[in-house]
Amino acid sequence: MGQTITEKIFSEHVGKEVYAGEIVRSPIDMVIGNDITTPISIKAFEDSGAEKLANPDGFSIVLDHFIPAKDIASANQARISRDFAKKHKLKNFFDEKDMGIEHALLPEKGLVVPGDVIIGADSHTCTHGALGAFSTGMGSTDLAFAMITGGNWFKVPETIKVNLSGKPGQYTTGKDIILEIIRMIGVDGALYKTLEFTGSTIPHLSMDDRFSMCNMAIEAGAKSGIVAHDEITAEFLADKDLARAPKIHQSDADATYCMELNIEVDKLDPVIAYPFLPSNGHSVVQAVADKIKVDQAFIGSCTNGRLADLKVAAEILEGKKVHEDVRLIVTPGTQKILREATKLGYIDIIVDAGGVVSNPTCGACLGGYMGILGDGEVAISTTNRNFVGRMGSRSSKVYLANSAVAAASAITGYITDPR
Amino acid sequence: MGQTITEKIFSEHVGKEVYAGEIVRSPIDMVIGNDITTPISIKAFEDSGAEKLANPDGFSIVLDHFIPAKDIASANQARISRDFAKKHKLKNFFDEKDMGIEHALLPEKGLVVPGDVIIGADSHTCTHGALGAFSTGMGSTDLAFAMITGGNWFKVPETIKVNLSGKPGQYTTGKDIILEIIRMIGVDGALYKTLEFTGSTIPHLSMDDRFSMCNMAIEAGAKSGIVAHDEITAEFLADKDLARAPKIHQSDADATYCMELNIEVDKLDPVIAYPFLPSNGHSVVQAVADKIKVDQAFIGSCTNGRLADLKVAAEILEGKKVHEDVRLIVTPGTQKILREATKLGYIDIIVDAGGVVSNPTCGACLGGYMGILGDGEVAISTTNRNFVGRMGSRSSKVYLANSAVAAASAITGYITDPR
Repeated sequence: MGQTITEKIFSEHVGKEVYAGEIVRSPIDMVIGNDITTPISIKAFEDSGAEKLANPDGFSIVLDHFIPAKDIASANQARISRDFAKKHKLKNFFDEKDMGIEHALLPEKGLVVPGDVIIGADSHTCTHGALGAFSTGMGSTDLAFAMITGGNWFKVPETIKVNLSGKPGQYTTGKDIILEIIRMIGVDGALYKTLEFTGSTIPHLSMDDRFSMCNMAIEAGAKSGIVAHDEITAEFLADKDLARAPKIHQSDADATYCMELNIEVDKLDPVIAYPFLPSNGHSVVQAVADKIKVDQAFIGSCTNGRLADLKVAAEILEGKKVHEDVRLIVTPGTQKILREATKLGYIDIIVDAGGVVSNPTCGACLGGYMGILGDGEVAISTTNRNFVGRMGSRSSKVYLANSAVAAASAITGYITDPR
Repeated sequence: MGQTITEKIFSEHVGKEVYAGEIVRSPIDMVIGNDITTPISIKAFEDSGAEKLANPDGFSIVLDHFIPAKDIASANQARISRDFAKKHKLKNFFDEKDMGIEHALLPEKGLVVPGDVIIGADSHTCTHGALGAFSTGMGSTDLAFAMITGGNWFKVPETIKVNLSGKPGQYTTGKDIILEIIRMIGVDGALYKTLEFTGSTIPHLSMDDRFSMCNMAIEAGAKSGIVAHDEITAEFLADKDLARAPKIHQSDADATYCMELNIEVDKLDPVIAYPFLPSNGHSVVQAVADKIKVDQAFIGSCTNGRLADLKVAAEILEGKKVHEDVRLIVTPGTQKILREATKLGYIDIIVDAGGVVSNPTCGACLGGYMGILGDGEVAISTTNRNFVGRMGSRSSKVYLANSAVAAASAITGYITDPR
């Protein structure tokens, strides 16, 4: 019987053919914690009486949310992870020295690999599915169970086949595709399912696009997002020292899907998700007509803090100035991205235009620090959630968009079509 | 009768010869507020019924302490200054677009000029005395009075003559000189007095050294610090579009000083101020013997966030790695400094070594954000105050030092002599 990639990954991991709906106990290749969620996992780990991690090299801690410490509580919280990493001699502990947002950093480091089963105590762990891995967010105690045993229980998810057709127009990106999907099916439209992205659009999507797309699978309620390994994946991995040998799977032609979605990407305009749900998508054409004034433009986060985002921002901002009423904040995903963007001149252009470039951090996206919204303020943001108060005051509003839209809007002061 | 520079500045401003101890009402050339202190001044200004600023071009607002907003309260607080700046069409309003720590930014912009009388609602306003100006910190309501009237009341301060002799050794900087002075006379040793720095050392001190030195005059209780205009000042000003014509004053040979201090700078080792007072100075040689382990090394602030600081940090860190137990945070004073340091390769070296480079901000220095200390943590820091809890937890400890010491300590994990 035909299998989806996801079914194949689990079959390979548990040593027998398994299908959607089955409950399996699978080994896990990479377990990911961050500065906020890991301390809870550590407590559960220690309360269990466990002394050793089942697979120390398969455990990564990335301090990214409130680091460098935004306050005393954050400093104390980070210390718990630091002490644990030291005690257990963790190889994959990423502190300020090698700062980055976990979902941008781990692919860069070769720590997430095609064919992996990955869990992380962060909802956007689904990002890594872009590499052809099964990757999902779990709670901190689920993480502790994996730290202790090296695996966890999963219900193999059903898969929604997302057929993407056509070449995307200029400034239509992976972010727009996923916002369009969430608009179509709603924030619970893919509950506990895998979104498998396929079709003639895929070869036109860079890894950065694919990471954005898989990253927001959770915003449709999906357990994971996935893109099959192809030449673009291979090229991305080529210069990396991978933690494991990649295992490449493709869905069979006769695999069972619970649903199919068809999107003509060549006809898709950039999408803006209006407050207060990622599913509240509108074409940028509509948003322009709605004359939406913005106080802040934010480019960053695990969704859109990659080199492609800084590149498009620099292209649009070159020789222009950020509108006097707008603050533009650009937060690169990792130190490597920041350095590459510096080398390529993007950072100079952004700062010249009047943008602030911060250190890598989750920061503003979750209302952590580095660009929090005040009462009544409006942001155009490349982040992933626009819930009430997500980026600050309960009376602030967040419009989600791609980086080109955010950069163009920073110049005009209104949500703007970059085309 | 002979006059000090300070007496000459006030005499010139009030149109008659005045001397230390006299109460004068002087016009003010530049009034400076920041994101924390300006809202209080604005309230006092508006409560007074005033409608117009006496001298709009002589008023600068710099948002630097908690910007980009670290939380909702900071965002709302910044909005008050933004709205006021817009309403009054302020030319000298510096928001995120042109970020910088006020005392690094204003000299860069040519807004503080030799011979000026300057006040700011920030205690480190004394920094600008390095340009041969009278510059002092005042409260927010004093600021409001100056906003309304264009001037304020001053008691012309007595002057302490600080005779600095000899050429400083490698890695002995302006920071070490001022820490040595504070060690000698205590945190109230110069109460309401001007510290006038003079002697054969002066031609060896860059403007960055002089800014550091004047910046911490307040830590000895001084009303202001001052260095007479010389060739180094002239060179610093040469490429700047100055807001006013400089007025150059020198103290007369027969000027009256209330006290003289003599420091043989050629024999001065780098100085470390131990917790919990800037006056608790020890030679770095002593600090090395004391084997002081550090968790964080911080290079930045209005005291030591200038190009010279980033340069020396890069020199020391080149080809080295930050110790595994240490976080190194580097916060450039302004966007211009950040960009110059990038161009000169300093930022690359610092990041290569494992340091985090942040956007310009007062941030960590005052326990604001961007590197707050947790319980029991120890920092070597180039900032200006090491009071209990200044940079975070009440049980944390801050050792004040110059940037070379901070960089060298970041590598070894212990307070280290960079020589």
